[in-house]
Amino acid sequence: MTDATRRIPVITRILEANDRVADENRRRFAEAGVCVVNLVSSPGAGKTTLLEHTLPALRGGVRAGVIVGDIATTRDAERLAVHDVPVVQITTEAFGGSCHLEATTIRQALDALDLDSLDLLFVENVGNLVCPAEFDLGEHAKVALLSVTEGEDKPIKYPLAFQVAELAVITKIDLVPHLRYDLDAMRAFLEKVNPRLPRVEMSIYTGQGLDAWMAWLEEKMARAAKRG
Amino acid sequence: MTDATRRIPVITRILEANDRVADENRRRFAEAGVCVVNLVSSPGAGKTTLLEHTLPALRGGVRAGVIVGDIATTRDAERLAVHDVPVVQITTEAFGGSCHLEATTIRQALDALDLDSLDLLFVENVGNLVCPAEFDLGEHAKVALLSVTEGEDKPIKYPLAFQVAELAVITKIDLVPHLRYDLDAMRAFLEKVNPRLPRVEMSIYTGQGLDAWMAWLEEKMARAAKRG
Repeated sequence: MTDATRRIPVITRILEANDRVADENRRRFAEAGVCVVNLVSSPGAGKTTLLEHTLPALRGGVRAGVIVGDIATTRDAERLAVHDVPVVQITTEAFGGSCHLEATTIRQALDALDLDSLDLLFVENVGNLVCPAEFDLGEHAKVALLSVTEGEDKPIKYPLAFQVAELAVITKIDLVPHLRYDLDAMRAFLEKVNPRLPRVEMSIYTGQGLDAWMAWLEEKMARAAKRG
Repeated sequence: MTDATRRIPVITRILEANDRVADENRRRFAEAGVCVVNLVSSPGAGKTTLLEHTLPALRGGVRAGVIVGDIATTRDAERLAVHDVPVVQITTEAFGGSCHLEATTIRQALDALDLDSLDLLFVENVGNLVCPAEFDLGEHAKVALLSVTEGEDKPIKYPLAFQVAELAVITKIDLVPHLRYDLDAMRAFLEKVNPRLPRVEMSIYTGQGLDAWMAWLEEKMARAAKRG
């Protein structure tokens, strides 16, 4: 118990320091009129693939950018940079292999971005359904992605991600016929941990859910512009 | 940078304290003649399903037990307890929602297990491809599971898990025909991060790879018995 109880105050101090910087980031986003969306999920749930299909679908001259967090490699940034948007890759190996992004790492990444030239900034967090949920980056909304291949019960086993999110995107829905998967059970588990959480069930390859996602993004941007 | 650099010594101290307790655990495992295998993967890669099929397949009177780590719920323990083996569930919500098991949490769990009555102890870690890889629990071997649905590049994006593991189990291999997935690319990425890592490609539903997995377990137990 001693080690575990000792860790909790350490974690509390880290979170408090994080929140101060998150507030700073939030002010900078508001001043620049940028809406910031933080994507959180397990490894391989489809965050990069979602962005690959979102960036070309943005309409009305929306200027987007991406901050990508990974432990190692710049693969995701390379996949996104072909869409001709500013992409900043953070590899957390330089930060002790950190399993999540923190407000300070975002603040550093902002040095490499011209916020005034952006309307929408995506943060693709490190693939991890646990720790990224704990850290406020100053974003307007967290979005939790969950692949159907991960099983129905992940919302109740990893509740925080779905409690802090403002949208759940259920990915790879086209694979359901090939799995032993109970869609209704997953929906019930999501509702149990967060009854107010809207949900988009999506397949990038059939296109299902993409319109709903783009509409959610547009509404989020419109709200952020009003508040800013 | 200040927050990030401050965190690294904190993490170092936590790991040193962990390693001392891991050594204690290791001695207890050796004295009791128990082989301990620590399963590490992303959420939903199939750790519990693998154990559900491993426990009934154990031959020769092998007496097995399981320590299951989750942030919340006792679902996995309930799935495993029907196989009539001792199962201890750790829910890390009590430890600040910790995203991995530590040597001290294992030490506590051992209070609820009669080690002398076991030959084989599985530890099913929290679903997280990052942090569990950093923590020695005193186990004989870590096994990293990776589902094909997570994409080919996870070994190079989350290298530590595959560097500290003594076996990679590639799960859900029956789904490959339904994915846009390059098996050879995944194999090459694995080899890049750890050229000596043996690999079992597995489908619980077709049975592919189960024999190879059981043979690996038997060899691991035989080696642990010799050393102990």
